[in-house]
Amino acid sequence: MTPVFDESFLLGNDAARALYARASRIPIFDYHNHLNAKDILDNAPFYDLAALFLGDDHYKWRLTRANGAPERFVSGDASGYEKFLAYASALPLAAGSPLPVWNRLELKRYFGIDAPLSGESAKAIWDQAREMMRGGGFTPRALLARSNVKALVTTDDPADDLSYHARLAKDASFPVKVLPGFRPERAGEVWRGADWRKYIQTLSEAANVEIKDYPSLLGALEKRMAAFAALGCVCGDYSMERVPFARATEAQLDAIFKKALAAEPVSQDEADQYLTELLLWLASSFAKRGWVMELHIGPVRARNSRMTALVGRDAGFDAMADHTLMRDLGGFLDALCEGDKLPKTILFNLNPKDGAAFAALAATFQDESFPSKMQYGPAWWMNDHRDGIRAQLSALGQQGLLGRFIGMASDSRSYLAFARHEYFRRALCDLLGEWIERGEYPYGEQEQHRLVAGVCFDNAAAYFGLK
Amino acid sequence: MTPVFDESFLLGNDAARALYARASRIPIFDYHNHLNAKDILDNAPFYDLAALFLGDDHYKWRLTRANGAPERFVSGDASGYEKFLAYASALPLAAGSPLPVWNRLELKRYFGIDAPLSGESAKAIWDQAREMMRGGGFTPRALLARSNVKALVTTDDPADDLSYHARLAKDASFPVKVLPGFRPERAGEVWRGADWRKYIQTLSEAANVEIKDYPSLLGALEKRMAAFAALGCVCGDYSMERVPFARATEAQLDAIFKKALAAEPVSQDEADQYLTELLLWLASSFAKRGWVMELHIGPVRARNSRMTALVGRDAGFDAMADHTLMRDLGGFLDALCEGDKLPKTILFNLNPKDGAAFAALAATFQDESFPSKMQYGPAWWMNDHRDGIRAQLSALGQQGLLGRFIGMASDSRSYLAFARHEYFRRALCDLLGEWIERGEYPYGEQEQHRLVAGVCFDNAAAYFGLK
Amino acid sequence: MTPVFDESFLLGNDAARALYARASRIPIFDYHNHLNAKDILDNAPFYDLAALFLGDDHYKWRLTRANGAPERFVSGDASGYEKFLAYASALPLAAGSPLPVWNRLELKRYFGIDAPLSGESAKAIWDQAREMMRGGGFTPRALLARSNVKALVTTDDPADDLSYHARLAKDASFPVKVLPGFRPERAGEVWRGADWRKYIQTLSEAANVEIKDYPSLLGALEKRMAAFAALGCVCGDYSMERVPFARATEAQLDAIFKKALAAEPVSQDEADQYLTELLLWLASSFAKRGWVMELHIGPVRARNSRMTALVGRDAGFDAMADHTLMRDLGGFLDALCEGDKLPKTILFNLNPKDGAAFAALAATFQDESFPSKMQYGPAWWMNDHRDGIRAQLSALGQQGLLGRFIGMASDSRSYLAFARHEYFRRALCDLLGEWIERGEYPYGEQEQHRLVAGVCFDNAAAYFGLK
Repeated sequence: MTPVFDESFLLGNDAARALYARASRIPIFDYHNHLNAKDILDNAPFYDLAALFLGDDHYKWRLTRANGAPERFVSGDASGYEKFLAYASALPLAAGSPLPVWNRLELKRYFGIDAPLSGESAKAIWDQAREMMRGGGFTPRALLARSNVKALVTTDDPADDLSYHARLAKDASFPVKVLPGFRPERAGEVWRGADWRKYIQTLSEAANVEIKDYPSLLGALEKRMAAFAALGCVCGDYSMERVPFARATEAQLDAIFKKALAAEPVSQDEADQYLTELLLWLASSFAKRGWVMELHIGPVRARNSRMTALVGRDAGFDAMADHTLMRDLGGFLDALCEGDKLPKTILFNLNPKDGAAFAALAATFQDESFPSKMQYGPAWWMNDHRDGIRAQLSALGQQGLLGRFIGMASDSRSYLAFARHEYFRRALCDLLGEWIERGEYPYGEQEQHRLVAGVCFDNAAAYFGLK
Repeated sequence: MTPVFDESFLLGNDAARALYARASRIPIFDYHNHLNAKDILDNAPFYDLAALFLGDDHYKWRLTRANGAPERFVSGDASGYEKFLAYASALPLAAGSPLPVWNRLELKRYFGIDAPLSGESAKAIWDQAREMMRGGGFTPRALLARSNVKALVTTDDPADDLSYHARLAKDASFPVKVLPGFRPERAGEVWRGADWRKYIQTLSEAANVEIKDYPSLLGALEKRMAAFAALGCVCGDYSMERVPFARATEAQLDAIFKKALAAEPVSQDEADQYLTELLLWLASSFAKRGWVMELHIGPVRARNSRMTALVGRDAGFDAMADHTLMRDLGGFLDALCEGDKLPKTILFNLNPKDGAAFAALAATFQDESFPSKMQYGPAWWMNDHRDGIRAQLSALGQQGLLGRFIGMASDSRSYLAFARHEYFRRALCDLLGEWIERGEYPYGEQEQHRLVAGVCFDNAAAYFGLK
Repeated sequence: MTPVFDESFLLGNDAARALYARASRIPIFDYHNHLNAKDILDNAPFYDLAALFLGDDHYKWRLTRANGAPERFVSGDASGYEKFLAYASALPLAAGSPLPVWNRLELKRYFGIDAPLSGESAKAIWDQAREMMRGGGFTPRALLARSNVKALVTTDDPADDLSYHARLAKDASFPVKVLPGFRPERAGEVWRGADWRKYIQTLSEAANVEIKDYPSLLGALEKRMAAFAALGCVCGDYSMERVPFARATEAQLDAIFKKALAAEPVSQDEADQYLTELLLWLASSFAKRGWVMELHIGPVRARNSRMTALVGRDAGFDAMADHTLMRDLGGFLDALCEGDKLPKTILFNLNPKDGAAFAALAATFQDESFPSKMQYGPAWWMNDHRDGIRAQLSALGQQGLLGRFIGMASDSRSYLAFARHEYFRRALCDLLGEWIERGEYPYGEQEQHRLVAGVCFDNAAAYFGLK
């Protein structure tokens, strides 16, 4: 056991430690996460680790389930402490998982707790943390400030109420920039039947546009983009199993749209055509506005139908797809590029086997409009661990230009997740340190620090035009 | 050259060495291998390394062929020593292969021989081993005892004669549990024409059930499952290039079955439908009995038609598939889960690129019926080497719960192959030691040893209900 | 910064350093590159780094573009020095890329320059190199001699003029063997319409055969193969996204060919049939002649249509495919093997995820005609870096017989690229050194050096029958 957290954690040599000593002081721009503007505005304090640490964290849920814990202790009606204990009991079995490391960083950085969480230590840690939280300082805003967050981008549906963002933006006393992020994914899920139709109705009302055909859908989205832009939005986001590339005419599109709206069945081919054209249109719109397009590619959502029916979506029942991706994704980007409508684009990849192909594809569409306009996105979700981070950085370094990488985003719902930026920076400095020691990166300290500062903050700030 | 075998082999730090010192004393439960119950019952001694060491080992055959040796010295009519020499001559060229390591462990553990096998050392090693074997102690049972094997599961066809298992079970003087394993794969190979029809006839006779349609096939299999269960069988096994998921009605199934039985051609789609439904039925039956389902996914059997025609199947002419797997495999597991018919399942994966996706899929179907009911199986066959073991352990650690892993199975036909459990345990302790030293596994010795003991024996024993 | 190049670069332990000390003195047989026989014959001196170092190097172009440099400084009309500076400025950002390492080796080995190239050092390096080049010794032949190149194989179209090769072969004063390599790829690109028809016309003229149908195409190719063979050609090469396996009758083939010749559209299925049969025929012809077949599998050429239209092909706009490959590639090799027409074959793989499957497939078709007749080719193009080299060597070591590997080929257009053989050899010795230190390769120095000498030169020399 390492009873006290070692500040050289993950830093395997002197070069790595020197790089991280500086990197640790750089502020955070979390350009993609799932925090809620209303919560930040309300700023209600957290009172225990169930709310602050467990939250609805599906990473932790999966681990607890893998330990055979009854669902009652995962998503069910057990008490906050019981759930915390069920998770804590699984943790010492989780060798090779990033969770023991994340949790250790979180408990250390926000509570000063050194002891690793386990079934044995759970009670003492729970009590100590609750005591501290009663003392105050565990509100969303205080946690953001302590995390050295300069700006963050939330994930918002086009139909979402942006008034919280508006009020936050006007609050001069709060220095953290909280920008909305435009995620129109639900508009594209034409295969989800009643759910989709209900969503179109919601969007209709939010945009105050009667959506009766494909053009009026685009009109509604356009109107919402303008509203997002007015509050500083600079990016649109979309997640899917694979990017399709099946072109359709306007007439075909309109026919598909009307079928779906009339609750008639839509074929896989039609769904692909619809999604292809919607994505091309969205990308063009983003390009026009100077927004960044983020594509999160690879998750199979709600793969476990039975548990999804019981517990709901985004509850730890997602898997990893392994489709052939490059033909269609390449065709999609090429079509945008040919029409001069390719926005700055971040390709997030879920299945680690595809890292080299993603990085090589991004490299194929670079141009002079912005340094590394095409980004191979950071190790994300199921890849957010040391091996995954190293694999992403290596693939990007081999196929692209690592020094122009926009770095890490937490993609998280938790106010403690900023500790993962520390994990990322340590892994980055460690890998760079290895390259330096092996003579593979022959440049001096100035170049080294410039590169690290770029990846940790500067590149993303420039890329998203952070003011 | 390292003339004497170093006991710290593969163990890169103190933590690793401390873990392995204990792990080395843990008995073996080899829950999946290809030993033969009759041989164990007969207990005939081995007299030379051709029989005991070379056997019909297709790993060694491939290596010898890659060295350009004539087939006569591989599967042909050369003498045992000539074949041994042909293999030994290739071995010093096999850097990066696990074979020099396996062989070294085998010669050291069973013969006390330190010298690495090569063309130069072959004669001396052959002679020394033969001398020792003449001295006795090289029977199947003695070798199992020396290997510290507590139990093993063989691989048996539903049509196989189980009398050897029955007699072994009754032999109170033999402490090793030898359980049959149910492998009904040949019943599913409906595309193999005359081979398949001949097999159906054999099965018919073994089960004493006239198989004339799909329901009577299931009846025969059910009857054989009962016979296997009576002898302690707790698992069913199936290997295939990919798990299909193409549902069919009973009428369709029966039509396909009858076509195949009438020697009419069966299309790829029909073969997929047949295999899908057969596998769903088998899985449900395993679930009902509380058996474990093992799916070995990925081999392309007998890829070299010419040599298969000359030498036969399972002779070193198998390759590795690279199909898109997750959509169908996920659908298959989901259908079982929805119907509450998903047994404990081990997903063995042959193509290492798919490790993360397999581990993530397994994690999606965990439930409270058993800790890590869904297992991402160990590095198997072409992955059974240090890199492969580390990749499997890492992917499982990242996506699942490594401390609940059921560990290694030899999948071997050889009585020396238990030395590979040593190789696996060294690789496991070495990786865990790295994580400990880097601060990625922050728990103490008690948790570390519990985890290692679990992976080496305890988890598999509990999972298979070993008494 | 490491101001002076460290001779133990990449060599992590004593065993590695001892192996490399010998390996560094072994001559080079670059069995696949893109140098030009005419240039070697003409032997015109290089005067600056733009010509010698930048060339039309699409690796460097991609890096410069990823840094956001205007295309003018990449493929455009900027001066040689301006382009050099644009590239040099990107280089310190290229951590993880092999380019800083390659460049450092090149500048050190050919110019004695230790300082790493950057925007700051660009001017001094440019000037120093130009000064040296004015002093002479920077001609193709002098560079080949200084690189210790014993032989090389160029890449030539069947329609190419071989007179330069003929004249080189007759020049007794020039000790380097420059062999032509037969690359009939353009004959297979039946989907490229007018480009293909124009090429068929060119080939017609070169072979002096009227190509009016499929048989006459084969006749023309046969005639050119004879001409190549007369000049010492011993290999044929083909690059494609994937190897198709869709058989066609002679009548079908002829129909497809005539459609294409008549500028009628050819379907994807027809293109696959055409390519399948052409490749089978080529392979058979190579087998008959005792030639080696090289298959370069995986690049998506000219993926960026817009920039390809502006700048041309082979200009840094290629990506990496991720097709399912094994079914068709396996079928293709199996068909050749069954007909006893499988030549010595090198499978080059671009997408690193497929390494294990490629290596396993190659192992499935070994036979006694030549040791490791089937080769899993070296880490190539986008994989030509330390990680890629280690992955290829490891996969081959695990699935095949590393000691029979034919080793590295530069695949380059540059006279400095032979420095990459040093990089490869260092990576090879480093990995082997690791295995030796860990006890995974237990053989002595003699076996170690024989293995390294084999991979660096001897195996390729024997494989290609170099005299």
